[in-house]
Amino acid sequence: MSSDIDHPTLLLNVERTKRNIQRMAEKAQRQGVRFRPHFKTHQSAAIGDWFREAGVSAITVSSVEMALYFARHGWDDITIAFPVNLRQLPAITDLAQSIHLGVLVESIDTVDFLSEHLSALVDVWVEIDDGSNRSGLIWDRPETVLKLTQAIQAGNLLGIRGILTHAGRIYRAASPAEIKRIYHETVHRMNIVRQFLTGQRFPVEVSVGDTPGCTLSTDLGRVDEIRPGNFVFYDAMQLEMEVCKLEDIAAVVACPVVAKYPLRNEVVIYGGAVHLSKDTVKVEGQNWFGLVVKKGKDYKDTPSRRWLSLVNGGFVSRLSQEHGVVRLPGPAFNRVKVGELLYVIPAHVCLTVSALGEYHTTDDQIIRTMNKEA
Amino acid sequence: MSSDIDHPTLLLNVERTKRNIQRMAEKAQRQGVRFRPHFKTHQSAAIGDWFREAGVSAITVSSVEMALYFARHGWDDITIAFPVNLRQLPAITDLAQSIHLGVLVESIDTVDFLSEHLSALVDVWVEIDDGSNRSGLIWDRPETVLKLTQAIQAGNLLGIRGILTHAGRIYRAASPAEIKRIYHETVHRMNIVRQFLTGQRFPVEVSVGDTPGCTLSTDLGRVDEIRPGNFVFYDAMQLEMEVCKLEDIAAVVACPVVAKYPLRNEVVIYGGAVHLSKDTVKVEGQNWFGLVVKKGKDYKDTPSRRWLSLVNGGFVSRLSQEHGVVRLPGPAFNRVKVGELLYVIPAHVCLTVSALGEYHTTDDQIIRTMNKEA
Repeated sequence: MSSDIDHPTLLLNVERTKRNIQRMAEKAQRQGVRFRPHFKTHQSAAIGDWFREAGVSAITVSSVEMALYFARHGWDDITIAFPVNLRQLPAITDLAQSIHLGVLVESIDTVDFLSEHLSALVDVWVEIDDGSNRSGLIWDRPETVLKLTQAIQAGNLLGIRGILTHAGRIYRAASPAEIKRIYHETVHRMNIVRQFLTGQRFPVEVSVGDTPGCTLSTDLGRVDEIRPGNFVFYDAMQLEMEVCKLEDIAAVVACPVVAKYPLRNEVVIYGGAVHLSKDTVKVEGQNWFGLVVKKGKDYKDTPSRRWLSLVNGGFVSRLSQEHGVVRLPGPAFNRVKVGELLYVIPAHVCLTVSALGEYHTTDDQIIRTMNKEA
Repeated sequence: MSSDIDHPTLLLNVERTKRNIQRMAEKAQRQGVRFRPHFKTHQSAAIGDWFREAGVSAITVSSVEMALYFARHGWDDITIAFPVNLRQLPAITDLAQSIHLGVLVESIDTVDFLSEHLSALVDVWVEIDDGSNRSGLIWDRPETVLKLTQAIQAGNLLGIRGILTHAGRIYRAASPAEIKRIYHETVHRMNIVRQFLTGQRFPVEVSVGDTPGCTLSTDLGRVDEIRPGNFVFYDAMQLEMEVCKLEDIAAVVACPVVAKYPLRNEVVIYGGAVHLSKDTVKVEGQNWFGLVVKKGKDYKDTPSRRWLSLVNGGFVSRLSQEHGVVRLPGPAFNRVKVGELLYVIPAHVCLTVSALGEYHTTDDQIIRTMNKEA
């Protein structure tokens, strides 16, 4: 099948993907924690089915559009882990009427608006900012969370379900040990908020979720659910943070080589910002758009055999709209020919999936994401 | 129409777009230079028609897919300004049979391959690297260009048309004066190569093209064609480089505000990396993903009236997949409400267009790009 590829194409190792899913599902199950995986990474109904096979019945999405897509594909317990967008009320109302919907709030105005306009019950999660400074109510002011919780309980058709956070700051960790420390610190901060609410007779669930923390922490701690997403494929960022091993990487982008520059040991690939995205991974102090790998001759190899091996010193160093400039060490540079494919582990696979919109699997299927489905 | 917008939406001012097109077309015409605009910026047949109205009949694209799309929409003189991708030979052959096709080469291997496999005539452009270090044969070794030119002339169904460059390095210029200097330096370098080839009885055309140089240089210099693309809408990068004025900006992204954080004067918008792209513009030493603007109450305003005004100090400072974090100065922060729209000039509009795939115009049309057309 490689011989048919003529444009930047996302290759998916099915066995590795299923193994990644299975491993996270088992970890959650062993610890009695609900596994509500984030589907923003794969954005595909077909891959969603692999989660179902692993016993998953509740999911997380990052937009109303994504909730509608997965609801159409039979998912009936969905949390939209994004602050409620008041302008999408009609779609939110439709969803609330047909599935078990969870929404994220963090202001009394939003609670009042929902209470006034909703016509079906929704679960409300209060978003907590664990120190990551993106969204949510800051964890160390639990009185503010209490006020919001009271407003939710007073509201029409709203039920407080729990408190939820995304520890985005974990991506600034310098080591696996620091990832685990931040994960447990976040869990601890969430439990401080929970304890305060419980003391005021509002028992709530705690939901956390990030791939580094959920992958590396042996003990998930006192949480009710986890919502990691990226772990389904992992990527160069996770590899570089030592969250995963090379044999866990389930998705790479195959890019045609279109030019070679011996004077600077660089090749140009058909594979640019509109394919890989401009997110970067830092390796040895420099930012790169992806890591170059060799692929076994037959990429249908099972995970137990070598599917990928790193080309040390092979990096995607610059991107324009459709061009990628790749730096290769001497021997790898000499080997590669114009017209061949070069394989790249993207810096941030979620954005690459969203850009490319379809997968070519190791068992010769084409799987589309919601972006490409009719 | 603003009231209907519920997700990140690209708003297009038709009058400004047409004015930008008209201005560049007239400049080229006055100087007797062919205007072969790059369609990778707008990627839309409908917007292509506006170029036709301005007298354009030859275009540039950045991929074979884009060439096929515009050929289907009646364009019959297309240069693919991207090194020939040998894996797309069947499509290239189809195109060569139905339209006047220009391709870019820079290696004898590629010339040999084309010569052996093509079944219809193509125009060949030799890509020259003007010092930008992306792709092409380096300008100061004209003997290499000569060798390639000889191979092209000897090849079957190949005709040497000219030498072509993209002065990507112009985007590192620190001032409008430096942009003009680099533009003319590139034109000079191209003419050194041309002179060498002419001396060897290979008269060739010179093709250059970048928005900063073509916009700011009053005199386009000794070139046969220009291929700018971004000027059709301009963006925050061009504005910051003083290539365009605020009243030339023809496209902004409307994003719903979903949360406010008074402690840090930041709001969160529905508008993330998958909408705006992660390209950045440097302002006052810091990188931002976009600039915040106010929009006139009625964005149907003509260009002669104020469509946009900058919110000084309003920047998109962080992006995750669907979230944008926006820093706003006090008064603007106090004014904005959750549920309202916030308007962003994207750092790099080409990538934003590619991500969003459709425009909502000031005259209430929806225009789709090739990514969203059935």
